[in-house]
Amino acid sequence: MRGSVLRSGAMVYCDDLPEPVPGPGQVLVAVKACGICGSDLHFAKHGAEMLAASQEVMGMRPPEPVDLSADVFMGHEFSAEVLEAGPDTDAPTAGTLVTSVPVVLSSSGVNPIMSSNTTRGAYAERMILSAPLLLRVPNGLDAKHAALTEPMAVGLHAVNKSNVSPGETALVIGCGPIGIAIVAALRARGIEDVAAADFSARRRDLAAAVGAHTVVDPADGSPFDVVKPAVVFEAVGVPGVIDDVLRRAPRGVRLVVAGVCMQPDTLRPLLGVAKEANIQFTYAYEPGEFADTLQWIAEGQIDVTPMVTGVVGLRDVGTAFDDLADPEQHCKIIVRPDL
Amino acid sequence: MRGSVLRSGAMVYCDDLPEPVPGPGQVLVAVKACGICGSDLHFAKHGAEMLAASQEVMGMRPPEPVDLSADVFMGHEFSAEVLEAGPDTDAPTAGTLVTSVPVVLSSSGVNPIMSSNTTRGAYAERMILSAPLLLRVPNGLDAKHAALTEPMAVGLHAVNKSNVSPGETALVIGCGPIGIAIVAALRARGIEDVAAADFSARRRDLAAAVGAHTVVDPADGSPFDVVKPAVVFEAVGVPGVIDDVLRRAPRGVRLVVAGVCMQPDTLRPLLGVAKEANIQFTYAYEPGEFADTLQWIAEGQIDVTPMVTGVVGLRDVGTAFDDLADPEQHCKIIVRPDL
Repeated sequence: MRGSVLRSGAMVYCDDLPEPVPGPGQVLVAVKACGICGSDLHFAKHGAEMLAASQEVMGMRPPEPVDLSADVFMGHEFSAEVLEAGPDTDAPTAGTLVTSVPVVLSSSGVNPIMSSNTTRGAYAERMILSAPLLLRVPNGLDAKHAALTEPMAVGLHAVNKSNVSPGETALVIGCGPIGIAIVAALRARGIEDVAAADFSARRRDLAAAVGAHTVVDPADGSPFDVVKPAVVFEAVGVPGVIDDVLRRAPRGVRLVVAGVCMQPDTLRPLLGVAKEANIQFTYAYEPGEFADTLQWIAEGQIDVTPMVTGVVGLRDVGTAFDDLADPEQHCKIIVRPDL
Repeated sequence: MRGSVLRSGAMVYCDDLPEPVPGPGQVLVAVKACGICGSDLHFAKHGAEMLAASQEVMGMRPPEPVDLSADVFMGHEFSAEVLEAGPDTDAPTAGTLVTSVPVVLSSSGVNPIMSSNTTRGAYAERMILSAPLLLRVPNGLDAKHAALTEPMAVGLHAVNKSNVSPGETALVIGCGPIGIAIVAALRARGIEDVAAADFSARRRDLAAAVGAHTVVDPADGSPFDVVKPAVVFEAVGVPGVIDDVLRRAPRGVRLVVAGVCMQPDTLRPLLGVAKEANIQFTYAYEPGEFADTLQWIAEGQIDVTPMVTGVVGLRDVGTAFDDLADPEQHCKIIVRPDL
């Protein structure tokens, strides 16, 4: 089977991957589309650091160990066609387009489809999914748009956690894929004053395309000179942003941290105290939010069309990883194993 | 008039303070009791730093400038007896025991009773209050207990901001006066599982006296080994506590920051992300919370009796400031101008 694996820090094309075999409760599917996630890029470059950090964070609940000297499978934003069900397993008929939250249930427990030496991801022709987790893709939605359910659900979850309500102004700082997903979810939730800030003109255009009412180039001045948001979404993930928001935002600000900052960060608690700020860290999504997101994409309430800035085959995953480093070129590159 | 003022970094007794004169809407009162607040101690020692920090925090809304080379008036936790009303002013009859949120309304605006060269505080025989802000002390409540309405309201506000509900476990880290106020407010709000942690045995005893179900000495191990709180109150205000809570607390923890940390603080956002933690900074209280607190103290739902660990006259304010540095000795020292 053909696929692309992380080997010695680079994505490598191979045509000799063993064929996956579905067990009880599992379904073999043919991957139709897989989005490349920033966390995959980050893992390829800084895998050892990410593993060490998550080890520390998880404390006594260590994640599945990952051996970086062996092949690592990735690819967690996917849609796929059902091929065949495992033993004693009910599944949609062959050919049904589906997606799923990126985990596989097996006798060994709940295995994330993320970055693993054993659990296969969607940078491959075929993979294993769990029958009870499958969601049918409705409305004839294009496979590459259905594949973006996962990152868009991250945005919806951040918006849900913010308790933002229509009438409030929201500011999204950082218009990479997560920032764009947040802008789209804010509009889907009926928020009527959404501002988005990014240094990249291309990303600002994307933010406007998915519904931002105002876009701001921070090179021209602080976004807080332009809008007075009740809710701020941090989708940058670099040190210093939280303190800057606490300094510039209005009193009572609710800051939702959706960017994953891997380094320690320094802030002035006095700023938070004086403004009675609230900081809500967010991560991933609930299964119900994932399902809502798929529905909303299929019905057009969330328009992911502008996000797809490239489509490649399995041979070009490594090049696509490199290309995604330039914010003026790309938002989402979709991998299509049939190309 | 007699009083105690901050002069060159020390509290100094004087008997030549000018007699305050109430203007329209104001009332002259005789101070019966005034609690010494940690922020007064801090201002006496680190006034220049506090002024610089608040200047930066306030940004374009500079606070009233304070000249540290001139006398500074302090004392914002008070009860007092009405003496006489200013011109064209309705006030309770002379002799009525009252308290008030610590601000004075005047033609120059809303002036905090906190640390000022011009607005007098309650470390003095007499002071000016604003008629519309006066609250009668009910139920024959002792003047020195009524004076603690202000710090106890800070605790109630923190508890209200936490949205803690009966059935949830709360942990209060730090049992200085604010931590104690939070424990008392949690009990008044009907929380049935309240833990409190402090290195000081005296402070742990106080926490138990005002209602903590469990007390923990962090020298014996982390409080998080003993309780799994849904809500954590940080009432220490030193760098490192927030990160430690994010590291040790259960997933979904709501951390209420009631301690005022004057220095920059470093935390690992990844910890917050992995646990979807929420951090709510809190400051002061709403006027309604102040009134509720007075009522609850008067009715016995909040018992402040154990908190009063000393009573001094105006001559001994300076010594009391020094004594309060030792957590094994004191929680609240009350100044009584009649002594």
